[in-house]
Amino acid sequence: MTTQELVAEIRRKKSFLCIGLDVDLTKIPTHLLQEEDPIFAFNKAIIDATNHLCVAYKPNTAFYEAYGIKGWISLQKTIEYLNQNYPEIFTIADAKRGDIGNTSTMYANAFFKDLAFDSVTVAPYMGKDSVEPFLAFKDKHTIVLALTSNEGAFDFQTQKIEGKELYKQVLETSKSWKNSENLMYVVGATKAEYFKEIRSIVPDSFLLVPGVGAQGGNLQDVCQYGLSKNIGLLINSSRGIIYAGHDKDFAKIAALKATELQEQMAEIMKKI
Amino acid sequence: MTTQELVAEIRRKKSFLCIGLDVDLTKIPTHLLQEEDPIFAFNKAIIDATNHLCVAYKPNTAFYEAYGIKGWISLQKTIEYLNQNYPEIFTIADAKRGDIGNTSTMYANAFFKDLAFDSVTVAPYMGKDSVEPFLAFKDKHTIVLALTSNEGAFDFQTQKIEGKELYKQVLETSKSWKNSENLMYVVGATKAEYFKEIRSIVPDSFLLVPGVGAQGGNLQDVCQYGLSKNIGLLINSSRGIIYAGHDKDFAKIAALKATELQEQMAEIMKKI
Repeated sequence: MTTQELVAEIRRKKSFLCIGLDVDLTKIPTHLLQEEDPIFAFNKAIIDATNHLCVAYKPNTAFYEAYGIKGWISLQKTIEYLNQNYPEIFTIADAKRGDIGNTSTMYANAFFKDLAFDSVTVAPYMGKDSVEPFLAFKDKHTIVLALTSNEGAFDFQTQKIEGKELYKQVLETSKSWKNSENLMYVVGATKAEYFKEIRSIVPDSFLLVPGVGAQGGNLQDVCQYGLSKNIGLLINSSRGIIYAGHDKDFAKIAALKATELQEQMAEIMKKI
Repeated sequence: MTTQELVAEIRRKKSFLCIGLDVDLTKIPTHLLQEEDPIFAFNKAIIDATNHLCVAYKPNTAFYEAYGIKGWISLQKTIEYLNQNYPEIFTIADAKRGDIGNTSTMYANAFFKDLAFDSVTVAPYMGKDSVEPFLAFKDKHTIVLALTSNEGAFDFQTQKIEGKELYKQVLETSKSWKNSENLMYVVGATKAEYFKEIRSIVPDSFLLVPGVGAQGGNLQDVCQYGLSKNIGLLINSSRGIIYAGHDKDFAKIAALKATELQEQMAEIMKKI
C-alpha cells in the first residue's frame, strides 16, 4: 500500500485508528476456547466488527509466537483474512526485528513476502544495514522504534549523544538511509510534549503511536503536536478496545470503544 | 542449564565454539531438497557431525521465519532434537527480541517454555522492562546486544553518551537489572581491541562473539582480551562451518572446519 492510499483511507473513514491484535488466550471470552482456532476466531470477530472504524490492524508477533506453531498459523490466517477481505486496511507486523544485513533480509522476506504485511516494526540499535533491507521493498513501510511508551525508554532512548537524545539521533540518522521515504516511526503517546520536537525533525513522516488509553496517553495532546499536513498519525489502541467486552457480545463492545475514538478523531480532523 | 554446567562442558570438550544454524535453502546441498524437511535434515546432519566439537548451537530465527510455518516447524524439530539427544549442549535462540514488559513476557514464554531454549538474544533499545521478563526465568540466559559485528554498529552503539559509548552504557546499566546474573552479551569479533574495556565493565559475564571467520574477526585477538577466569566466551561461526562443503559430504567437511577452530581453542585453553 502506498502512503497516498493510506492517507486517502484516513480521510474517507475520518479515522487514523490502528487496532492492536494482541491476543492472549487468558483474556478472550471463554466461549471462544471451544473453537478450532480461538485466536483467529477472536481476530475475525474483532476485524468484522471494527474495520469501518479503523485504518490499520497491528498484531504483535510476540502474542502469536507464545503459542508456537499454532500461534503462527493463527497469525497467517489473520493476515490472509485481512488481505483478502479488507485490502484497504494497512497492516502492521509489530515484530521489532533487526539484525545484520543478510539476516534482516530474511526477516523482510518473512513479513513482506511470505505473510504479505504492509509494514513491520524494526529496532534501530544495530543501525543502517539492519534497517535498509526492509526499506528495499517497494510500497512496504518500515516503522523504526524511536521513542517507546514504556518506562525503559528513559534508560537509553532519552540519553543525550552530543547534546541530542538518542531517539532524535535515530530520527535524524535514519533520514539519510536508502529509500527513507518508506520510513515511519514508533513514538509513544505517554510523552505528548515530545511530539513538537519530533515534528521538527520528521515533519511529514507517519508516526505509529501506542500508549493511548491503557498506557495513559491522551489523544488530544498527541494530535495537538503530532498531526502533519497529511494527518501523519496512526493511533494504536489494543487492550482498551479488544478486551473491553468479556462475553459473547465482545466484538460489538469493541466496536463501541473503537467508535468513541473514531468520533474523537473525526472531530479533530474537522479542525485541520 | 546453569553457567557452571556450561563452563564444565567447555573444559571437558576444550571448546568454546558455538555453531550458528542459519539455514538458507539456496545454500544447502541440493540433494537435501528432496527431503520432507530439508532444513531439519541439514541441521540434524550438522549437529550429529559436530556436537563433540562445540558447546552451543545458535539458530537465527530470521532464517526460519523466512519459510513461514514450515520454517517454524523446522526450528521446533531442531531444538527438540538437540534437547532430546544432546542435553549437554547450550542452545541459543538468536532472535534479537525486545518489547514492553507484558509483551517481552510473551517472547520469553515462546523461547524458554514453548521451544525450551537455554537462552535468547535480546535488543536493549527499549531498556530495563523490555529485558527483565527474560531474566525472570531460572537457569535461562538472556544475551543482550552490546556491540554488534556489522557496519551499522557505528551508527548508534559507539556514539558517546556523557563521554561513554552507548554499548558501554548498555553494559553498565544492565548490571543493575533484576537477576542480572542471568545476563550474557553479544560482542562482535571485528573489534577485538574493545574487549579489554568491555572486560573492565563485565569481568565475568559470558560474551557471545559473532564475526570470527566470515566477518573477519580473529580468534587469537578476541581471546587475548576477552577470556575471563571461567573462559567467558562463546565464539560463533555460522557460514564458515555449515556451508564449507557443498555435496553429500557437507557434514563431514563442516566437522573438519569445526575441528580447526576447536583445536585452536584447546591450544588457547592450555595457556590459561
